[in-house]
Amino acid sequence: MPSSFRTATLQLKRRLGAKVVFTDEAALFAASFDSSKISFPPVAVIKARTEADIGVALVLANRHRVPVTVRGRGTTLMGSAAPVRGGWVVDMMALNRVAIDVEAGMAHVQAGAKVADIQRAAEKKGWFYPPDPSSKEYCTIGGNIACNAGGMHGGKYGVTRDFIIALRGFLPTGEYVEWGTATKKFAAGFNLRDLWIGSEGMLGVVTGAVLKLIPQPAARWTLLTSYRDEAVALRAALALFRQRVQPAICEFLDRESVVCAERATKTTVFPGQAGRPVILLELAGGIAEVEEQKALVLAWAATHALATKEARNRDEAEALWAVRRKCSGAMFELGDAKLNEDIVVPMRSYLKFIRFLAGLKRRSRLPIPTFGHVADGNLHVNIMYHRANRSEARAAEAAVNELMRTVVALGGAISGEHGIGLAKSPFLRVQHRPAQVRAMQAVKVALDPRGILNPGKMFEPVRIWKFPKLAIHLPWDHK
Amino acid sequence: MPSSFRTATLQLKRRLGAKVVFTDEAALFAASFDSSKISFPPVAVIKARTEADIGVALVLANRHRVPVTVRGRGTTLMGSAAPVRGGWVVDMMALNRVAIDVEAGMAHVQAGAKVADIQRAAEKKGWFYPPDPSSKEYCTIGGNIACNAGGMHGGKYGVTRDFIIALRGFLPTGEYVEWGTATKKFAAGFNLRDLWIGSEGMLGVVTGAVLKLIPQPAARWTLLTSYRDEAVALRAALALFRQRVQPAICEFLDRESVVCAERATKTTVFPGQAGRPVILLELAGGIAEVEEQKALVLAWAATHALATKEARNRDEAEALWAVRRKCSGAMFELGDAKLNEDIVVPMRSYLKFIRFLAGLKRRSRLPIPTFGHVADGNLHVNIMYHRANRSEARAAEAAVNELMRTVVALGGAISGEHGIGLAKSPFLRVQHRPAQVRAMQAVKVALDPRGILNPGKMFEPVRIWKFPKLAIHLPWDHK
Repeated sequence: MPSSFRTATLQLKRRLGAKVVFTDEAALFAASFDSSKISFPPVAVIKARTEADIGVALVLANRHRVPVTVRGRGTTLMGSAAPVRGGWVVDMMALNRVAIDVEAGMAHVQAGAKVADIQRAAEKKGWFYPPDPSSKEYCTIGGNIACNAGGMHGGKYGVTRDFIIALRGFLPTGEYVEWGTATKKFAAGFNLRDLWIGSEGMLGVVTGAVLKLIPQPAARWTLLTSYRDEAVALRAALALFRQRVQPAICEFLDRESVVCAERATKTTVFPGQAGRPVILLELAGGIAEVEEQKALVLAWAATHALATKEARNRDEAEALWAVRRKCSGAMFELGDAKLNEDIVVPMRSYLKFIRFLAGLKRRSRLPIPTFGHVADGNLHVNIMYHRANRSEARAAEAAVNELMRTVVALGGAISGEHGIGLAKSPFLRVQHRPAQVRAMQAVKVALDPRGILNPGKMFEPVRIWKFPKLAIHLPWDHK
Repeated sequence: MPSSFRTATLQLKRRLGAKVVFTDEAALFAASFDSSKISFPPVAVIKARTEADIGVALVLANRHRVPVTVRGRGTTLMGSAAPVRGGWVVDMMALNRVAIDVEAGMAHVQAGAKVADIQRAAEKKGWFYPPDPSSKEYCTIGGNIACNAGGMHGGKYGVTRDFIIALRGFLPTGEYVEWGTATKKFAAGFNLRDLWIGSEGMLGVVTGAVLKLIPQPAARWTLLTSYRDEAVALRAALALFRQRVQPAICEFLDRESVVCAERATKTTVFPGQAGRPVILLELAGGIAEVEEQKALVLAWAATHALATKEARNRDEAEALWAVRRKCSGAMFELGDAKLNEDIVVPMRSYLKFIRFLAGLKRRSRLPIPTFGHVADGNLHVNIMYHRANRSEARAAEAAVNELMRTVVALGGAISGEHGIGLAKSPFLRVQHRPAQVRAMQAVKVALDPRGILNPGKMFEPVRIWKFPKLAIHLPWDHK
């Protein structure tokens, strides 16, 4: 640790006090890693009690060139919240106010508010906040904004970005700024609000946000369908979308994912038809609207699906959802390490991609259970291997490389909702031309001339799978 | 004109040919102004025939430091497309391809495509592109992206930004870039796509875009309602929104606007009740969905409105819309000059704003008919005066200043859909703190180090109303 960091940390403690700045070992360890489970100890943790605390810390950090990494709950799998260069970690968890504006249909929140808490507060007033990453009971809206989080509702409703009305917080220099107003229209000056969304804590610190809400759907209806094989399933999905039916949720699970879920639940999804790929649909909207669409979906399923199961109430719907919820955790039967790649494929490339995936499974000799959001092309490709087995580890690395190159060649994206962080840094240049990366870096330098905010991420390729991982169970880990 | 511009223009002609580069007087005049009608002659007009032409021009422009201003149809009222520093104008009108991806619900378009053409192409395939600026039969999608255009559908559906999936084009340096993929999720690298949206042609040149479409509503239903006064009308609107009813369109016209429309149409909107403020609502969606909402709206109108008129078919709906369509042009009975300010007020400030507006009308002694999109707070405040009348012109300038300061004090925005350009440049710093303006300027320098792209806009305060205006009638001018 440079001695200037020590001086800076002493000054920080004097300014913010011992109830905000922590340097004890337990605090430093807890802030040293996120869900990527690679530990980089910081020299201090700032548990912000007011938004202004963050400005104070950033001004000092600039003066002494101390790296600053901001974290919510640390649920990211990408290493985006890990303080790779040490320095200070700002913990946002105490800034968690939520208020609903009933007339405007907006939520006024602080960055540390949990996404599920925001959803519940909105629901109480008849409003709905759709983005729903699977960690929503833990993760913060600030983290969701930082990586432009998605979830299952993306196809119909969109992602975090689509629900951000205004942001406030601090530039890397420590200057307080507000981007946008609590209004649905704003066309006054460059759009730095959206530049912040998805910038993974590298271009500014979000302390508060105004979120757009939509009316809470009065009705929901769930249908589980199975298919002969993956290509048939995806072709069926395309036929549904051609009719302009937009399910609120439309989840696809390939055979390997279904087998995982069936092992975990010790049942078959459809009796006598073990291991068939499935699509799980949920319609949502007004009562009449859902009835109208239900008729279309049932007719479609009768034509395309091998078998169907309809939920008649919320309990039955929950039972259908079990298959989706269980598959991810159950994958650890297939290996002790998982490369979970949240790639995106445009619809026109679905069938090409599914053929590629079959080949990748064969060539790599690894299980690669794949499931995801088929209405927006965001599939989770889970490359499973045993960490200690060198040849499997090599095969996994080769498979990730091939996957990323193929996805981009098919017109898709290397990440749909996780972001780059450390984990996808080797592939940033697969996605982006040199001029694009240079433009991003120029923007970074313009806003963070001292390079103090979340340094070492995105632009510097790191092969995260080579790092030792903490053997630790996090509350949001799949069992 | 600097002699280096002449050399550069000769090189440009050699590179792109006489069918692309024009220097005749007619072409230079036509490209010298937009709907602000203030003329700044360029030295050449580049009528791009391929997207690559633009890259060639930008590289040369950087080498010789020639200002470049990009224009679509030039419908902006803000002066954003006027080449204030001379140099070259890039005309995008020939790049107008439109293709609909039926399964994905996306439109692949070139920047010069007309917005109404995109809407019609989408509609043919059962899809809908909601943003609808009133100039949509003329304006281009590139211009809409440049100013983040809105329209009447903003409250329910959002604005241009909400429908942009991916952009391609050129950095100010002439380097080709692509931001985003044709997928609804993308979380790979800084979000320069959205930084371009609303950057008014100052941070890059959009040549093509992928737009999100939504299913074409199967049903529409229109209702015109009138109220005792403006405050009652806005209170009624808030009561509707509290029930979470989201009309596709919800237009408010104050008394002065209604009087203008009534004069133009030579009828009263509601017999025996001349000059009452009105709210014009349109529901849109599935057949059953619209029926469901209609019942709510009729019950609401029975409680709050003085009178109502329901459209039983499209022709009757068109008749109701006449009041909204006619009011803007008819305002020129009240003065030969109009300051049309597309401010935005948050819902919580509606009643305060309407009181302020009444006071402003009294103090300025000017007619200030006001109408607009009450579901998103984007009101068009039209300050009418006679240009030759010095005291009226002074009163108008004072009124604009007071309006802008009040809107920001109420938590609103100085522009909801027009942008800054020249016309709102004196007010940028009313909206934004110094640190915010500095951050925007730093981003500008980072991406456009030679400052060639649309210089002289946004950051340099210009009192546009002092400039002589061309006496010219444009096809999209209100009569």
